Amino acid sequence: MTQLQPVLVAGQWRPSENAGTFAPLNPATRQPTGELYPVSSREEVEEAIEAAARASEALLDIAPQTRARFLELFAGRIEARRAQITTLAYAESALPVKPRLDEVELPRTTGQLRQAALAARQGSWTLPTIDTKAGIRSFFAPLEGGVVVFGPNNFPLAFNSAAGGDFAAAIAAGNPVIAKANSSHPGTTRLLAEEALAAVKEAGLPEATVQLIYRTDHQVGQGLVSHPLVGATGYTGSRQAGLVLKEAADRAGKPIYLELSSINPVLILPGALRERAAEIAGEFTTSCLLGAGQFCTNPGVVLLLKGAETEAFVGMIVEKFRAAAVGTLLGEGVEHSLGQSVTALQQAGAEVLVGGAAGGGTGCSFQNTLLRVDGGRFLAAPEALQQEAFGNASLLVVADDDDQAEAICRTFEGNLTGALYTDRAGSDEALYQRLAPILRRKVGRLLDDKMPTGVAVSPAMNHGGPYPATGHPGFTAVGIPASLRRFAMLQSFDNVRPDRLPPELRDKNPTGQLWRLIDGAWTQGDVPAKP
Amino acid sequence: MTQLQPVLVAGQWRPSENAGTFAPLNPATRQPTGELYPVSSREEVEEAIEAAARASEALLDIAPQTRARFLELFAGRIEARRAQITTLAYAESALPVKPRLDEVELPRTTGQLRQAALAARQGSWTLPTIDTKAGIRSFFAPLEGGVVVFGPNNFPLAFNSAAGGDFAAAIAAGNPVIAKANSSHPGTTRLLAEEALAAVKEAGLPEATVQLIYRTDHQVGQGLVSHPLVGATGYTGSRQAGLVLKEAADRAGKPIYLELSSINPVLILPGALRERAAEIAGEFTTSCLLGAGQFCTNPGVVLLLKGAETEAFVGMIVEKFRAAAVGTLLGEGVEHSLGQSVTALQQAGAEVLVGGAAGGGTGCSFQNTLLRVDGGRFLAAPEALQQEAFGNASLLVVADDDDQAEAICRTFEGNLTGALYTDRAGSDEALYQRLAPILRRKVGRLLDDKMPTGVAVSPAMNHGGPYPATGHPGFTAVGIPASLRRFAMLQSFDNVRPDRLPPELRDKNPTGQLWRLIDGAWTQGDVPAKP
Repeated sequence: MTQLQPVLVAGQWRPSENAGTFAPLNPATRQPTGELYPVSSREEVEEAIEAAARASEALLDIAPQTRARFLELFAGRIEARRAQITTLAYAESALPVKPRLDEVELPRTTGQLRQAALAARQGSWTLPTIDTKAGIRSFFAPLEGGVVVFGPNNFPLAFNSAAGGDFAAAIAAGNPVIAKANSSHPGTTRLLAEEALAAVKEAGLPEATVQLIYRTDHQVGQGLVSHPLVGATGYTGSRQAGLVLKEAADRAGKPIYLELSSINPVLILPGALRERAAEIAGEFTTSCLLGAGQFCTNPGVVLLLKGAETEAFVGMIVEKFRAAAVGTLLGEGVEHSLGQSVTALQQAGAEVLVGGAAGGGTGCSFQNTLLRVDGGRFLAAPEALQQEAFGNASLLVVADDDDQAEAICRTFEGNLTGALYTDRAGSDEALYQRLAPILRRKVGRLLDDKMPTGVAVSPAMNHGGPYPATGHPGFTAVGIPASLRRFAMLQSFDNVRPDRLPPELRDKNPTGQLWRLIDGAWTQGDVPAKP
Repeated sequence: MTQLQPVLVAGQWRPSENAGTFAPLNPATRQPTGELYPVSSREEVEEAIEAAARASEALLDIAPQTRARFLELFAGRIEARRAQITTLAYAESALPVKPRLDEVELPRTTGQLRQAALAARQGSWTLPTIDTKAGIRSFFAPLEGGVVVFGPNNFPLAFNSAAGGDFAAAIAAGNPVIAKANSSHPGTTRLLAEEALAAVKEAGLPEATVQLIYRTDHQVGQGLVSHPLVGATGYTGSRQAGLVLKEAADRAGKPIYLELSSINPVLILPGALRERAAEIAGEFTTSCLLGAGQFCTNPGVVLLLKGAETEAFVGMIVEKFRAAAVGTLLGEGVEHSLGQSVTALQQAGAEVLVGGAAGGGTGCSFQNTLLRVDGGRFLAAPEALQQEAFGNASLLVVADDDDQAEAICRTFEGNLTGALYTDRAGSDEALYQRLAPILRRKVGRLLDDKMPTGVAVSPAMNHGGPYPATGHPGFTAVGIPASLRRFAMLQSFDNVRPDRLPPELRDKNPTGQLWRLIDGAWTQGDVPAKP
């Protein structure tokens, strides 16, 4: 009989006080990976929450440099164990070891951890603000209680709840993390958490700084995110499960940062197609089919203007979709819901140009699929036609004219990204100026002449956007230092005696590197001595 | 028959399509002020929302300097009409014209408007972030749709929905405002909105940049804050009404910033009492009874350590409370709920030391009230004993010893402020170091040796705090520029052509004053030319 994998609670790998079990599948074979995982009980989750709350208090006495050292040690350990980690991640996700897992996602993961370490070390993410006249000083400080991280299925490493972006941001900001593994890759998460615990011990952090559970039922999950001793939650995943958690967290007044769904409209204007249709067709196909389209920023809807250049372009991409290899999906759930979404889009008036049925690849798969609908039909059912079809599928919307294209843009829901392709000669400029301001306010990131699938880890990145893409338009899940401020509270110190202030807010700049807003000017200097 | 006052919708003062009426009372006389106001219907509110959404789009084409000019013109107009405004505010609130309304609150209001103008003009609140290597640039930009502002009863000017802090922040950030007057001072709000509209016209802003309604029923209010065309809501008021709005806004994924309730614990350690009990007794009494205690940051609970110095201190403040004049409350609702709260505190185990009954002053009033409970009883019912008694009342909690004081601190809910008084000789230092870190995480602003009632308009101010003080621990309602970022979305520009970028993100610093984070360093310079 397969042994049940342990959970990581309060610094110990130990048998789960479980309320059930689950066995992950290998999506390439549809066979069990051979491992068995526990569904955590309410009591077990409660214990993790309490251990995290104690760790949260203990972390107050630990310098940011120690958190930084942990993040760097952890990154090194992931690299040292890369073969085993990527092999198991491949078995659980069917994402290829090379180039994807080993050459792209793993370096992104360790790069993020090291960037977060740098941010923790430098401290400028806390936006220290000093008003010498009023005697008031403020900065962002860790939350009270642990941060819960729910990772998505589509990035077993870079968004992993025990090693990814939310994890790095929460720890760098000074919070312990309760990782809730994505149930499609619990083994990968377990390996990462093993290295995290080893790095925690090596760095000398409280042992409950990193904990791991694999699954809970809905009710226990709601109890987790709304618990009085929890600081906040970061969630990336399906809209349905996310909204269940959001309701519970909101009711308890607990911050929850959600990344729910996005169809990432791409507007390709006629001049661009006349100028470089083949080039754009290549970019679009690559972007839409990369990783079997399983990206939050996958281009799920393409808006085109009626005309000969559009028909030619559609012909090209249909050909490319037909010719391209069909990738393996992350699991049966993805395969099933992609089928459901394609059917729903058809029922709402879209026609299938290519693909449209399950299969075509190894294991869990779905044919590369393009659907098409005209602008009038889209406007008749804009909500139904904005259903996310997560995977290797996209909907082409062909507008009759500029007015209809504008009307369609106005119906777009909140998205992570929006892109516009225009020609270099300037014939599209007037229409760009008309559509871009409308699209701009519906998306977190606006792109020119570029597909949205690459999400650079840049301080200027916004991997966020208006609801329902996320729960709040002011926050980003990718991009350091901004992502750290989600897991922090604003603390103001009024008339607090100088020797009691945190180092970041004392007259002397603690490192000479910290950026602080002193009396309205950003500086790395000390607070000037009073004349 | 009294004429029904008009609403301000879509740039017009016009008769309300009302669903009812209400007549405000003068709290000093308990008589009607003589004015009659409409309760707005769903249709009227819908019209205001749509007009605000159009204004929100029109504002995109208007320079921040024009918004700044509006805020300055508005401030000047308020000053020009100050006699009429403060006279009506006095009639509606019973807050004295001098010094409170004319010399304190009105200058604070116009000062905030001018600070917000400065922030809009300078633009640094948008945190422009430029990553030259990745070709990505980001900043905070206005929301899509209007911002709804619900003002509280206790600041008819400085937190007024048509002139106060949330109003100034929302407009400075580039959003139109739908003001929902507090029903206790609709006339004051109307006068302010008249001047706002005049300033809107003079500055050349879209006329629906400022709109005013006075009251709605709960259902229409919920529809307002959750409407797809609304950008966000700022609410200051009672916890009960706030939570009704929060639920609706949360469900729709609309940001809502709430300031709900706070008891602002003040910890007075024994050494401080031995050193300067009389001084602290004076500060506490002034802070607690100022404006009849009707401040969000009123010291509602005082934690003391058992001992002779505490008994002497209690004796002093009981005397002072008995001797102090009883102020007039803001209305019958405040008088009634203060009575209810005092009764509830008694039922939970507190005893009344002085006061405890309605009356004692002119019009709506309640005796200056001190309650007392020992630490053991407090720990038996910490939730019931943290009920906010809004007004001139405070609860003294006397802990048996340091351990019990720590246990009490751990039960504190989220608050706007927490204060600690300690001696100058250092005998309290050990206990300070034990209690302050616990209190620190429960409050937005920590004070040393100072009562919390003064809320300076400083960039380092935090007038916010963990739930239930507010809905999110990362935001402040007072303090420019941070308060502006509540009413904004993060916008990232990826590969966007240089001439299409907003001025704040172009290579050339648009004013030479704007602070920008370019490749990790804050600067007022241009993006360096590529080598």
